[in-house]
Amino acid sequence: MPQLHLDPDRALPPDPTTRELARTVYAATRSLPLVCMHGHVDAALLADDTPFGDPASLLITPDHYVTRLVHAAGVPLEALGVGPSATTDPRAIWRTFCANWRLFRGTPSRYWLTHELVEVFGVAVVPSAATADALYDALSSRLASPEFRPRALFSRFGIEVLATTDSPLDDLDAHARLAASGWEGRVIPTFRPDALVHLDRPTWTADVAALAKRADVPTDDYDGYLAALRARRQAFIAAGALATDHGHESADTTPLPPAEARRIYAAALSGQVAPAEARAFAGHMLHQMAAMSCEDGLVMQLHPGVLRDHSTDAFEQYGPDRGFDIPVTAEFTRSLRPLLQSFGRHPTLRLILFTVDETVYSRELAPLAGVYPAVRLGAPWWFLDSPEGLRRFRASVTETAGFYNTAGFVDDTRAFASIPARHDLARRIDAGYLAGLVAQHHLDLDEAIETAVDLAYTIPKEVYTRPAT
Amino acid sequence: MPQLHLDPDRALPPDPTTRELARTVYAATRSLPLVCMHGHVDAALLADDTPFGDPASLLITPDHYVTRLVHAAGVPLEALGVGPSATTDPRAIWRTFCANWRLFRGTPSRYWLTHELVEVFGVAVVPSAATADALYDALSSRLASPEFRPRALFSRFGIEVLATTDSPLDDLDAHARLAASGWEGRVIPTFRPDALVHLDRPTWTADVAALAKRADVPTDDYDGYLAALRARRQAFIAAGALATDHGHESADTTPLPPAEARRIYAAALSGQVAPAEARAFAGHMLHQMAAMSCEDGLVMQLHPGVLRDHSTDAFEQYGPDRGFDIPVTAEFTRSLRPLLQSFGRHPTLRLILFTVDETVYSRELAPLAGVYPAVRLGAPWWFLDSPEGLRRFRASVTETAGFYNTAGFVDDTRAFASIPARHDLARRIDAGYLAGLVAQHHLDLDEAIETAVDLAYTIPKEVYTRPAT
Amino acid sequence: MPQLHLDPDRALPPDPTTRELARTVYAATRSLPLVCMHGHVDAALLADDTPFGDPASLLITPDHYVTRLVHAAGVPLEALGVGPSATTDPRAIWRTFCANWRLFRGTPSRYWLTHELVEVFGVAVVPSAATADALYDALSSRLASPEFRPRALFSRFGIEVLATTDSPLDDLDAHARLAASGWEGRVIPTFRPDALVHLDRPTWTADVAALAKRADVPTDDYDGYLAALRARRQAFIAAGALATDHGHESADTTPLPPAEARRIYAAALSGQVAPAEARAFAGHMLHQMAAMSCEDGLVMQLHPGVLRDHSTDAFEQYGPDRGFDIPVTAEFTRSLRPLLQSFGRHPTLRLILFTVDETVYSRELAPLAGVYPAVRLGAPWWFLDSPEGLRRFRASVTETAGFYNTAGFVDDTRAFASIPARHDLARRIDAGYLAGLVAQHHLDLDEAIETAVDLAYTIPKEVYTRPAT
Repeated sequence: MPQLHLDPDRALPPDPTTRELARTVYAATRSLPLVCMHGHVDAALLADDTPFGDPASLLITPDHYVTRLVHAAGVPLEALGVGPSATTDPRAIWRTFCANWRLFRGTPSRYWLTHELVEVFGVAVVPSAATADALYDALSSRLASPEFRPRALFSRFGIEVLATTDSPLDDLDAHARLAASGWEGRVIPTFRPDALVHLDRPTWTADVAALAKRADVPTDDYDGYLAALRARRQAFIAAGALATDHGHESADTTPLPPAEARRIYAAALSGQVAPAEARAFAGHMLHQMAAMSCEDGLVMQLHPGVLRDHSTDAFEQYGPDRGFDIPVTAEFTRSLRPLLQSFGRHPTLRLILFTVDETVYSRELAPLAGVYPAVRLGAPWWFLDSPEGLRRFRASVTETAGFYNTAGFVDDTRAFASIPARHDLARRIDAGYLAGLVAQHHLDLDEAIETAVDLAYTIPKEVYTRPAT
Repeated sequence: MPQLHLDPDRALPPDPTTRELARTVYAATRSLPLVCMHGHVDAALLADDTPFGDPASLLITPDHYVTRLVHAAGVPLEALGVGPSATTDPRAIWRTFCANWRLFRGTPSRYWLTHELVEVFGVAVVPSAATADALYDALSSRLASPEFRPRALFSRFGIEVLATTDSPLDDLDAHARLAASGWEGRVIPTFRPDALVHLDRPTWTADVAALAKRADVPTDDYDGYLAALRARRQAFIAAGALATDHGHESADTTPLPPAEARRIYAAALSGQVAPAEARAFAGHMLHQMAAMSCEDGLVMQLHPGVLRDHSTDAFEQYGPDRGFDIPVTAEFTRSLRPLLQSFGRHPTLRLILFTVDETVYSRELAPLAGVYPAVRLGAPWWFLDSPEGLRRFRASVTETAGFYNTAGFVDDTRAFASIPARHDLARRIDAGYLAGLVAQHHLDLDEAIETAVDLAYTIPKEVYTRPAT
Repeated sequence: MPQLHLDPDRALPPDPTTRELARTVYAATRSLPLVCMHGHVDAALLADDTPFGDPASLLITPDHYVTRLVHAAGVPLEALGVGPSATTDPRAIWRTFCANWRLFRGTPSRYWLTHELVEVFGVAVVPSAATADALYDALSSRLASPEFRPRALFSRFGIEVLATTDSPLDDLDAHARLAASGWEGRVIPTFRPDALVHLDRPTWTADVAALAKRADVPTDDYDGYLAALRARRQAFIAAGALATDHGHESADTTPLPPAEARRIYAAALSGQVAPAEARAFAGHMLHQMAAMSCEDGLVMQLHPGVLRDHSTDAFEQYGPDRGFDIPVTAEFTRSLRPLLQSFGRHPTLRLILFTVDETVYSRELAPLAGVYPAVRLGAPWWFLDSPEGLRRFRASVTETAGFYNTAGFVDDTRAFASIPARHDLARRIDAGYLAGLVAQHHLDLDEAIETAVDLAYTIPKEVYTRPAT
């Protein structure tokens, strides 16, 4: 069977001089622990340490990076296990995936999956219609063995800390069980209140009612709502949280006068909120969240610029997170101005900015991060968490913001088994970028090595620290 | 006389390792037939097989890529044969061009013209004031000989199929004569209804009247107008058409309620249409055209984002297509949503998207093509059909959309003699990009070769097929 | 002490073949005189030839490229000598800077400062907490010696001409003194009327009153105001000026009907101007300035797209130009259309366009410059005047506009001692870009060398010439 090969020089620059330098830089970071501050892994996975299921339900069905590309080629999502009338035979799903392996040429999914098959699971076979069954069987037998259970992999991966992403409504029970279990792995929650600050989401009314219960603070007026959010932030902090996360379509942060915020909140409770009011309230709440971060020191992460569920039809058939979230133009300079006017030079705010619109890198993000002490640039996110994407990020922001106004590498992983591949890729790309600076005599090699270590490890550790408040 | 030289390694990456790989990849595509699905060559040229005229009227005057750059240096367009009071001496025009050869340094026109002079016409002399006359004489003698007539060049170029771009008002007589002639070359029309869907164009009233005649379907109301367009699509299909083409300033595809469409159409017929109504109707008609493509299987091509005739003054003096069409910001995510909501997962729609605004590559186009089965990304168009433009396209879209959600190479040729140069350049750039992936161990060499063949030949053939409806 | 090293190959491409070619190209430009057409150096510096002060007040405090990055790391601007309650001890400021040297890794400031320390001042020591005092002392002793006074450096730098940037209210006394002094250095003013055309600036009323006095033309109505501006342009021309410069948030150039311009001007004089009126008037005045340039031949420079003083708080504490000017999306195609419709093909207009929004390079700027005789593209400006920024500029615009529709290299220097470093960097990057074209056989080496000389010297000299009017 044709073999998959993980070349030791993969993702390093092709020019021999630069490659040699990149090898040296990469050698200094390849074995550093993984600091994973922005993941989407379920804490229960580690609390329960249940074995992973079959190969398809581990690697294919839940990964919208994978299912979207196969669907784009005309394969129904059902054939990949997605949706209520989906195929339930995991082997059939796996075969469909393997037969479409060529669709992933040139994509980071190909990089991650290859790394997972070779490094994590030790099955170095090129997926194809011919090899699908053999691969399936080999993977299945791996998954049945104890060293492929979540905690064992966590240790093997060298994860120093893993942040999950959690609703304020979450009881954090899995995190509590992890803490109580005596297991040495560090897993912490992240406070993500999106559903509660978007007044026009269908579930909003139910969600604020649930918030009141969870926080034990009535949310029947705006002041109670803020108090309940504050209470949940404290509960998250008690459970180890270091950060909040905010996914908004726009980066607008314009605060409302308190009376107007109260009025809109009350209108929403009675089901009478206009779309423009809901948008204004969402922007207002980003300003409020920054104010609370100044109080309690939670690092604030902002991921704007995505139109969720572009296909209503697909959303209704398959639910959210199926690949139909499409970026739109982002704007930060004017949108963040109210927040930065208020808190951009506040000593305890850390605001980490992410984007899927690369045009803002050199125009807006690097200039903002290059002057406001509160601002740090998050790593390339989502579609941009890729070899060229990571490279363009460094090439676009470094000259204006330097390295030390970025947040280092922050993975945004949904698929647990891909965590090492993502960190490894980022370390290789940063090594290549730094090696290029050395090759062009912009940097000395010892500085490049020190910077690489900082980007991979020191900076994320330092940035995601709750400052004394 | 200083010689022009076509280096066998031109446009391949400079790094020796990558270049060697690129040579291997390019060798697999360099002799493949040319699939030319989006040209602006006049079918009559091939139907009549009349000899080309003098060098200036073949290579200079009709090519706005050439005339614009010389004009930008301060040379009146008249000196290049453009406009009613233009120089009529082709040798004088040719001398002006040759004396300005340095203006083309670093441009794709330089690449194409060099290829044409050396490969197509066998006159390898560097253009300059000193060489202009000798070059003119050599070219003139070539053009007088039978092997430089259009059909002979068509065969020599290895063109497998050539699509022209045609108004629904065109009687397709040249295509009929070609079909009847027994000549083996395949030349097919493309349905481009822009003039008929923009209600505010000065010629619109006359054009819908002509449409009624040509289709033999009355167009005095909206329903008749749609029926007439449908009838012309069928006539184009009968003449071999595989695709439609749409050039709109915006990519908006919002459908109007039928009553509103009828009302605006009627208003336009009576000369009473407001600019906003005309814009809304144009967007509505893109939605209608997609609906018709679902019915009849014509592949739909969309080229938005250009402000035509930026200089009214130049338009009035020299007419359209003189280099004064300037791109504006493009937007696809929200604009295409109505169309994609309706038809993006329809089994018989193929929607090929082009842009001259590169900012949408990674932000909007690749994410849309990476999930909607109907969407394919067209090749870099117009100003972007250039070495760096082609390279940036692959670097920006591949990681999110892969190779197989693109349409492969699609040339947009106005100058017949430049067709081979354009395909050759695209094959070289794709070879270099794929070689880079191999050099970075993202792809195996055999996969790179297979992908290169797919991009150059297999994919365009497959994409521009009318699906069974 | 660890030594700073200026490698002879710095900023050249790493690939050995391309580097060798780049060395050859660079050798042809490295010693050419410096044509500095857009500086922010104070003419009095050269008129008085006063010695520079201490290292901190020469290299740190006035340079917002430097202070912003240190501030972004959390250091108060006061510690860098900025603001009313700033540290006044220059040695303490210097120590703070040296201790933060790593923040500049990968930035052009690092490149320029290294060049200044090694080449201009001959103190090749890596800044750090440990070396700060030694460096300070060495620099101080250099600055006390005659060969480090402004005129001596001007000569040593090989500056052929230095343009300053001046308000129409400036009496040009320093320029007059320079002319009268018999010194051979050529220093010319540039007409920058921003404060006078933005009706909503707090100082506007006082400024137009001062304009009346300076021009000896009453400005109590719009026609007088235009006449006063014309008179000042003539005074600038008499003092050697070749150009005007315009910094606007938007590139809008829509002319107002004269009656409307008169009405808004009168309203502004009585303190009654609305923000939208002020914006419209600013756009109108760009159109007027182009009309005046057609009359008097001053080259027009436009720098749009920056939101000044993003942090009101920082502005109030520290004043303007402290790093809080943040770019916004730029738009040229529609904004410049009125101006270009009127004057874009006028034989005596030269309009040089700058941007800090790179998205317009290939989409708008190169297409406009590639057809309108009046338009030239300015060099990458501000944050983009950097190795990658200069490279992306050439890669994005050359294929559409060629080299000869750019203005060659135009530095935008605030720090006098950095002038040679900036020209040197641009020459290296252009050498590398041209070498890449040679390596890919797009250009012959002799053409590359000629083009490099044109970009560094011939073109800026030719572009910044007042055409006969």
